[in-house]
Amino acid sequence: MIGRSRDRVNAAVQRALVVQLGGASGTLASLGSDGPAVTAALARQLELNVPEMPWHTHRDRIADVSAALGIACGSLGKIGRDLTLLAQSEVAEAVDTGGGGSSSMPHKQNPVRAVTAITAALRAPGLVSTMLSAMPQEHERAAGGWQAEWLTLAELIAITRQSAEAIAAALGDLRVDTSAMRAHLAIHGGVAMAEALSAALAAHVSRKDAMGLVETLVRTAARDRRSLQEVATGDPDVSRWMSATEVDRVFNPENFLGSAGAFVERVLQRWEM
Amino acid sequence: MIGRSRDRVNAAVQRALVVQLGGASGTLASLGSDGPAVTAALARQLELNVPEMPWHTHRDRIADVSAALGIACGSLGKIGRDLTLLAQSEVAEAVDTGGGGSSSMPHKQNPVRAVTAITAALRAPGLVSTMLSAMPQEHERAAGGWQAEWLTLAELIAITRQSAEAIAAALGDLRVDTSAMRAHLAIHGGVAMAEALSAALAAHVSRKDAMGLVETLVRTAARDRRSLQEVATGDPDVSRWMSATEVDRVFNPENFLGSAGAFVERVLQRWEM
Amino acid sequence: MIGRSRDRVNAAVQRALVVQLGGASGTLASLGSDGPAVTAALARQLELNVPEMPWHTHRDRIADVSAALGIACGSLGKIGRDLTLLAQSEVAEAVDTGGGGSSSMPHKQNPVRAVTAITAALRAPGLVSTMLSAMPQEHERAAGGWQAEWLTLAELIAITRQSAEAIAAALGDLRVDTSAMRAHLAIHGGVAMAEALSAALAAHVSRKDAMGLVETLVRTAARDRRSLQEVATGDPDVSRWMSATEVDRVFNPENFLGSAGAFVERVLQRWEM
Amino acid sequence: MIGRSRDRVNAAVQRALVVQLGGASGTLASLGSDGPAVTAALARQLELNVPEMPWHTHRDRIADVSAALGIACGSLGKIGRDLTLLAQSEVAEAVDTGGGGSSSMPHKQNPVRAVTAITAALRAPGLVSTMLSAMPQEHERAAGGWQAEWLTLAELIAITRQSAEAIAAALGDLRVDTSAMRAHLAIHGGVAMAEALSAALAAHVSRKDAMGLVETLVRTAARDRRSLQEVATGDPDVSRWMSATEVDRVFNPENFLGSAGAFVERVLQRWEM
Repeated sequence: MIGRSRDRVNAAVQRALVVQLGGASGTLASLGSDGPAVTAALARQLELNVPEMPWHTHRDRIADVSAALGIACGSLGKIGRDLTLLAQSEVAEAVDTGGGGSSSMPHKQNPVRAVTAITAALRAPGLVSTMLSAMPQEHERAAGGWQAEWLTLAELIAITRQSAEAIAAALGDLRVDTSAMRAHLAIHGGVAMAEALSAALAAHVSRKDAMGLVETLVRTAARDRRSLQEVATGDPDVSRWMSATEVDRVFNPENFLGSAGAFVERVLQRWEM
Repeated sequence: MIGRSRDRVNAAVQRALVVQLGGASGTLASLGSDGPAVTAALARQLELNVPEMPWHTHRDRIADVSAALGIACGSLGKIGRDLTLLAQSEVAEAVDTGGGGSSSMPHKQNPVRAVTAITAALRAPGLVSTMLSAMPQEHERAAGGWQAEWLTLAELIAITRQSAEAIAAALGDLRVDTSAMRAHLAIHGGVAMAEALSAALAAHVSRKDAMGLVETLVRTAARDRRSLQEVATGDPDVSRWMSATEVDRVFNPENFLGSAGAFVERVLQRWEM
Repeated sequence: MIGRSRDRVNAAVQRALVVQLGGASGTLASLGSDGPAVTAALARQLELNVPEMPWHTHRDRIADVSAALGIACGSLGKIGRDLTLLAQSEVAEAVDTGGGGSSSMPHKQNPVRAVTAITAALRAPGLVSTMLSAMPQEHERAAGGWQAEWLTLAELIAITRQSAEAIAAALGDLRVDTSAMRAHLAIHGGVAMAEALSAALAAHVSRKDAMGLVETLVRTAARDRRSLQEVATGDPDVSRWMSATEVDRVFNPENFLGSAGAFVERVLQRWEM
Repeated sequence: MIGRSRDRVNAAVQRALVVQLGGASGTLASLGSDGPAVTAALARQLELNVPEMPWHTHRDRIADVSAALGIACGSLGKIGRDLTLLAQSEVAEAVDTGGGGSSSMPHKQNPVRAVTAITAALRAPGLVSTMLSAMPQEHERAAGGWQAEWLTLAELIAITRQSAEAIAAALGDLRVDTSAMRAHLAIHGGVAMAEALSAALAAHVSRKDAMGLVETLVRTAARDRRSLQEVATGDPDVSRWMSATEVDRVFNPENFLGSAGAFVERVLQRWEM
């Protein structure tokens, strides 16, 4: 998502690099028949592309850049939000070790860089909406639409950069606590592995029966405050198909990673392209 | 602008046509090692592309579609706004002859189709901002972000279509009043041609002197409530360089169209590509 | 509308002037049982009101201030838009004589202060939406929501002030051209007075018949490019009920001002309250 | 916050209940001098208030209603977000027992009603921004602004109602797990009580020294993976001022509730007013 966001910003900026020269009313009339030639020369000097026609009140390219920046902020904000969720005291599965301190709570490490990304993701939608609202610009010179873009686009650029830098730094300083992750799989009697058990049982009975059986086991575990694995191992319907060792294997999360590794590989390959 | 908006929507939709299959936590764990193969088969059947990884909470592609729709609404809204400005009773240079009637004013033809486009351009920015606000979705399943998109995206699609159809129809039924256009160039003493006069004089004196001279003439014309052409023809500083016939030529707007024709040609060529 | 907008901002600010003191987790626990007393003393010193409880993540009062500012910008923007419409060359019924000049068109007086108000009205909705988006703040200390408000609220305050000052100045320098207004009532054959004629005829025939008759007269006038008054005066169905003098009276716009004066009186009284 | 949001909506609706009657151009000219009397009679029949003047393009009252609804959605969304955070498997301090089931995870109770409120809080800002964007309406009849409000206001009303109902129901069905809350205070060595320890020590040494001492203890506890209480009890600098029993008292969260009870009392009183 971050790679696509980067590509989207680059492509939109590239498309927006077109010279604007229109004269008083967009016809370059005061240049006589030299309008296109002068435009081309100016574009060469500024290293910009030449548009089909002056575009002073055709703001789609500018709006497109702002939208790409807004989408980048939203993408980075998703990481920011996940980082704050992972950093909660009760979760603490991953923490940005470069975070800020807390004035009243000496033990806390505030995820200030994730917060920077969340802040940008909260501000970007309103800023992009201003850029879109400013699009219907009058005739060949807008009354207000143009001016509304100036500070708005500048802020979008600034917060996107801040957000990208913050997330890059936070991910570089991230300390992942795999033992906390493993421990959390065991809470509530290890019911997080219920799907793994269903999948294993579905090799022997119908998927519907497997899910029904697991649902009963989950309820029993919750009622008796026992672990799902313990309840499953002792259950006659389970042991008809699976030995205790097989159940044990099912409850080992490392055997239930699915295609996670393959997905990560593919994303890394795409990123390096 | 409309051609680019159409291309942008098409490209964003094309990029968004990727299958989503992730299972309970985005790893396709319950499919064992068959995750990628099942995903590919599903994509084939649905005629969708295969993503690098499940993307349930990676909403950039959806947000991109919404932004492209929002930009299309803004582009169409620009035409809509210009149509309402041109249709004002005091302007009346172009009118949508398929417009609606007025209940209390039998003589009025309301530009209802331009208004449809303006309405869409007013609504789209807020809807796009909702799509962007919904982007920071939690972990592998959002609490609210996903749901906020449903009606919002549907409405964006609906109003973009309504707007495009309305503008296409309005432009098809447009009656342009060129005599009104020509008449308006003559109002306020024909000062709209001041730039043309400056440009003509700048062939003989410096651009600065030309502008200064024209500014004086414009003030004289305003003070004496005479036409700028009349004042210019009788002015000794002008007649030193230009005959009355040459001044007359300058004040004929047809000689001051500049590159308008060339621009239109280029746009039409680009559109047909 | 401007008076109500001012009152709304004042009331929202008044309601928002409440002290915030909550300690690390919003309970003032480190102050023992002195929390309420310390809060009250702090409020006295800062000349703020005392809230029922700490409100660090209860942002409704701040959002309310931002909404009141946004509504003020929208109200001022309505005046700004009308000023730009009135200032169009083809309309020119009212012009801000303190407007800015145009670099390429020496005769133009750009309505820069109206544009300031339109710009503010274009930016305010996005800024208010950011304030509202930031409202769902986590527990007793937000991760991002709080920070997103800072610059956003500051900008809302700044643009509201700029807009109010610009409109106040523009209205103070407004030059109204009543002769242009009167002249525009006569364009298109004076059909703007069609409703006045309907109303006068409705004293003699049914409202439906009056409207039908006027519609026919309007069409005749348009077809023959004559004025509606001329067509009406010569029409036997009209002259059955109204003399030429009476028709003349109907077409005098001063006799068709309705309750405009009474409305203005009431608004002025309300404003002075 | 919810009480204030309710009051704000009621007040805005009350202020918006004013009749609109203006005729073709807002002067009620076709009613002669009877305009005000007819307006008053219509208002009586519709049980609406009488405005100072027709307000067809003065949309501040409507915008105010929309803003009040948006603020209500934001306020309810804050509760919704907190509910989803409390319902996380790793937290599980409070759960909406009326939540929905999960198709792939039989043990999960999804906080669907909190999600309804979050969805509304995500959609409301964009909808309110549309209402504000639509405010600058032209002259006495808008070209688009008016139409943009219709569906937008209707949706704001609908989602505010859905959100309020969902949160009311969720809070009614809320099961709070106080033992989980107490257990979480003990995680990470009980450092959540660090502020309580600082406050107790500050009765004997300066506040600065107290905080410095506690910071050292927190670091020692983290390094040695011992509880903060244990480290504090064995620390000579602490035992100079506090007995083990006194330290024990400090680490009992029930002795560190501060003014929480008083705050709740006040809010309840205010609500019942």
